[in-house]
Amino acid sequence: MRKASIVSIGNELLNGQTLNTNTLYLSERLFAIGIPVVSSYTIGDDIDSIVRMLNLASGDADIVLITGGLGPTDDDLTRQGLAKFLGSELQLQNNLLEKIQSIFASRNRPMPEKNNIQAYIPAGTKAIENIRGTAPGIRAEAEDKLFFVLPGVPSEMKQMFEESVLTELKRFAGEQAIAVLKLKCFGAGESSVAEKLGGLMQRGRNPLINCTVHYGVITLTIIATAKDKVKAQQMAEKDEQTLREILGELIYGTGEQTLAEVVGAKLAQQKKTIAVAESCTGGALAKLLTDTAGASRYFTYGWVTYSNTAKIKELGIKAELIEEDGAVSCRVAEAMAQGARKRAETDFAIGITGIAGPGGGSEQKPVGLVYISIDSGNGCETKRFVFPYGRDFMRLHAAQTALNMLRLKL
Amino acid sequence: MRKASIVSIGNELLNGQTLNTNTLYLSERLFAIGIPVVSSYTIGDDIDSIVRMLNLASGDADIVLITGGLGPTDDDLTRQGLAKFLGSELQLQNNLLEKIQSIFASRNRPMPEKNNIQAYIPAGTKAIENIRGTAPGIRAEAEDKLFFVLPGVPSEMKQMFEESVLTELKRFAGEQAIAVLKLKCFGAGESSVAEKLGGLMQRGRNPLINCTVHYGVITLTIIATAKDKVKAQQMAEKDEQTLREILGELIYGTGEQTLAEVVGAKLAQQKKTIAVAESCTGGALAKLLTDTAGASRYFTYGWVTYSNTAKIKELGIKAELIEEDGAVSCRVAEAMAQGARKRAETDFAIGITGIAGPGGGSEQKPVGLVYISIDSGNGCETKRFVFPYGRDFMRLHAAQTALNMLRLKL
Repeated sequence: MRKASIVSIGNELLNGQTLNTNTLYLSERLFAIGIPVVSSYTIGDDIDSIVRMLNLASGDADIVLITGGLGPTDDDLTRQGLAKFLGSELQLQNNLLEKIQSIFASRNRPMPEKNNIQAYIPAGTKAIENIRGTAPGIRAEAEDKLFFVLPGVPSEMKQMFEESVLTELKRFAGEQAIAVLKLKCFGAGESSVAEKLGGLMQRGRNPLINCTVHYGVITLTIIATAKDKVKAQQMAEKDEQTLREILGELIYGTGEQTLAEVVGAKLAQQKKTIAVAESCTGGALAKLLTDTAGASRYFTYGWVTYSNTAKIKELGIKAELIEEDGAVSCRVAEAMAQGARKRAETDFAIGITGIAGPGGGSEQKPVGLVYISIDSGNGCETKRFVFPYGRDFMRLHAAQTALNMLRLKL
Repeated sequence: MRKASIVSIGNELLNGQTLNTNTLYLSERLFAIGIPVVSSYTIGDDIDSIVRMLNLASGDADIVLITGGLGPTDDDLTRQGLAKFLGSELQLQNNLLEKIQSIFASRNRPMPEKNNIQAYIPAGTKAIENIRGTAPGIRAEAEDKLFFVLPGVPSEMKQMFEESVLTELKRFAGEQAIAVLKLKCFGAGESSVAEKLGGLMQRGRNPLINCTVHYGVITLTIIATAKDKVKAQQMAEKDEQTLREILGELIYGTGEQTLAEVVGAKLAQQKKTIAVAESCTGGALAKLLTDTAGASRYFTYGWVTYSNTAKIKELGIKAELIEEDGAVSCRVAEAMAQGARKRAETDFAIGITGIAGPGGGSEQKPVGLVYISIDSGNGCETKRFVFPYGRDFMRLHAAQTALNMLRLKL
C-alpha cells in the first residue's frame, strides 16, 4: 500500500499564530482514497530544516505533500529547500513569469519585484497551476518518491490539490480500498466501552476500530481495508453489526450525527413536541435542540429559570417546595418538568436543576450535582448525576444527558 | 535560548478525524514566555513511531511537549513509547491508582479494569496531576532534556499545562523578554480593523501585531520583544494605548475575556439585572450569559419562545402584531424585549427574532435577517442585521451582537 507523509512549512505554524488546518484536510482526503498518512512534520521557514524534514518524510512514505512557504517574501524558502533537497538549481520559467505578470495586469497593479521569485522552480520539476493566487505549486520526483508542493493558504491549497494532485494520486489508490463507518455512543465512559469491545479494538486488526471521546460523546470509527470497495464496505458493515449487538442502545447514531439531531428526528417522526425548563444549564439544552434546522416542528417553548422567583412565577413551583428541598433537588426538577409541560402543552418536558459551580456546593450537594427530570404525561422519570471536570463540562454534559434520557424514551 | 519541540500522538490526527489544536495552543503559550517551538511532529498510536519521534524532537530542542495517547484503551500507547525511549519499565503507582479509583467512586460507577493502565508511569518519571480526567500526565528527564506528556483532550491538556508545566518552563525563559497583550474587539470586520491600523500591522515590526478572528470576535495580539521584561511590557502597553485610540469602543476587553464576561461584570458592578427572550437564537444568548460563574447576580429569567404561541402566551405579545408584521419584525423584537422586562422585572431585557435558516427566507426577509431589541426602561433600541455564513454563525453572531449592544449601553 502506498503511504503519504505531510510536511507543513511556516514560522506562523510554530509561534501560535496560525492553526494548521491543511494537514487535517489533506489527511482526510488521502485517507478516503486509501492512502494513509503515516506522519506529519511542521517546521519553520529555514532551508536546512526544510531539507531535513523532506528527508524524514520521504523516508516514511512514497508520497510527500508539502504546504507553505511559496509566497513572494524573503521568509518563503520552500522552493530553495526543495532545490537543495533534490540537489538541483532554481530555474526561471518564462511561462510562469508571464502568468504572474498577467495576474497583476488584470488587477491594474504594478508587479512588485519580489514576485519574480514565484516564477522559479527547481530544474527537472514541474509547476502546478494556481488559479487562485500568484504562487504556482511544484511537482517533483526523486528516487521513486513523489513530492507535491502546495501553497499554505488553505483556499489555494485545496483548489490545487483537488484539481491537479488528487487525480494523479488516485492512480496509486488502486490496489487497496478503504471503507470508513462511524458509530456515535452516549451513556458510558470510554474505558467501559473499550472493555465491552475487548479484542475488537486491538491495533493491527482489520477492520481497525478507533475510539475518541468529546464531552461524553464517544465516536467509534471502523476502518476496513480490502482489495476492493465492496469487500471493504462489507467488512465494515459486519463490524458495525457486531458493535451494535455489543453496545445496544449506547449507540445513538452514525456518521457526524449529534444527539440533538437524532432526538429531533425521532420527535418529528413521532409528531411529538418538547419543552424545556433549565436552571444550571442556562439555555444550553434549548440551544442544542435548536441547533438543528427545522427544530420548530417539535420544539416550541423553553424557560431559563435561573432564579427561584422565575421558577415560582413561570413554572408554578411552590415556594415551600424550594424552601424544603432546595432549588437543586429531585422534587424541584420534577416540578420544573411538570410545570413546563403543563404551560407549553407539549408531549414531553425536561426539567434540569443543578450546581454548575465553581461555588455553591456543599457536602450533601456537591458542585456538579444535577437532577434531570422528564415528564412524559404519565409520570416523571428523574435521575441524579454528579458530573466532574468543572462548569463547562458539567453544563454541556447535563444537557446531553437529558437528550439521551429523552432518546431512550422515544 | 532554550527551545521546545512538540510531539502529537494519535491516529485520529492523521486520518482526517481530528484537528490538531493542541500544537497551536502550546506554541502560543511557549512563545509568550520566550521559548520558541522549533519543530512539531505528528505520529499515530504506535510504540516504535513514538520512540522515533521522541528521538527527533529531543534532538531539536531542550524541552519536548508530548500530547495524546494517555487514554485507557489499547490504542493509547504513549506511556509504553516513553518507557521504551527512556529505556525503563512501566511501574504501578499506588497513589495514582487510588486517585483513579476515587474518581469512579465519586461518580458511583465501577472502575473498568482498563483504567488500571493509567496508574502506570515509566520508572524514574513523575506523574502530573489531572483534575479534569483520569489520565495523569508524565514528567521525565533524560540527558539534560525535559519531557512533559499531557493528555490529548484539549481541556485536560490546557488545565495541566497551565497548572503544572508552565511554572517550571518559565524558569527557562531566555535572555530576550517577550510581553504579550491581547485586545478583544467586536463590531467591525477583520479587514476594516486592519485598514484602520495600517502600518502598525507590518511584519517585522516590533512590537508585532497579529490579528485573528473567531465568530466576529477580533483578537489583536501585541507581541513586544526587548532586553528585559519591563521594557517589553512598556512597549506593548504603548501599542495598546495607540490601538485603543484608533479603535475606541470597538475594543471590549483584554486577554481571554469574552463579551459575556465583560457585560456580566458591568451588570454586576452596576447592580443591574437582565432578562432575555429568544426566538432564532434558541437559548444561545442565555447560555452565553450563564457560561460565567456568578451569573445569577444579574441574570434571572430567560425565555426561548420558538413558537408564536409561546411568544403570545409567555411574553404577552398581541397575536395581531405577529399577523401584521410577521414574527421576524422590528415590532415583535421590541414587544419581546418589553414583555420579558415586564414579566421578569429586570432593569434590561433583550428580544431577538430572526431567520436562522437554511429554510424560511423570502426576498423581503432573507435567511440571516435578525432584529435585536433592548428595553432599558426608557424605550427600546432595536437594530436590524443580516448575518451571512449559515445557521450556526448567524445564531452565535446574533447572540454576540446583542451582548455588544448591551455593553455599549452600560
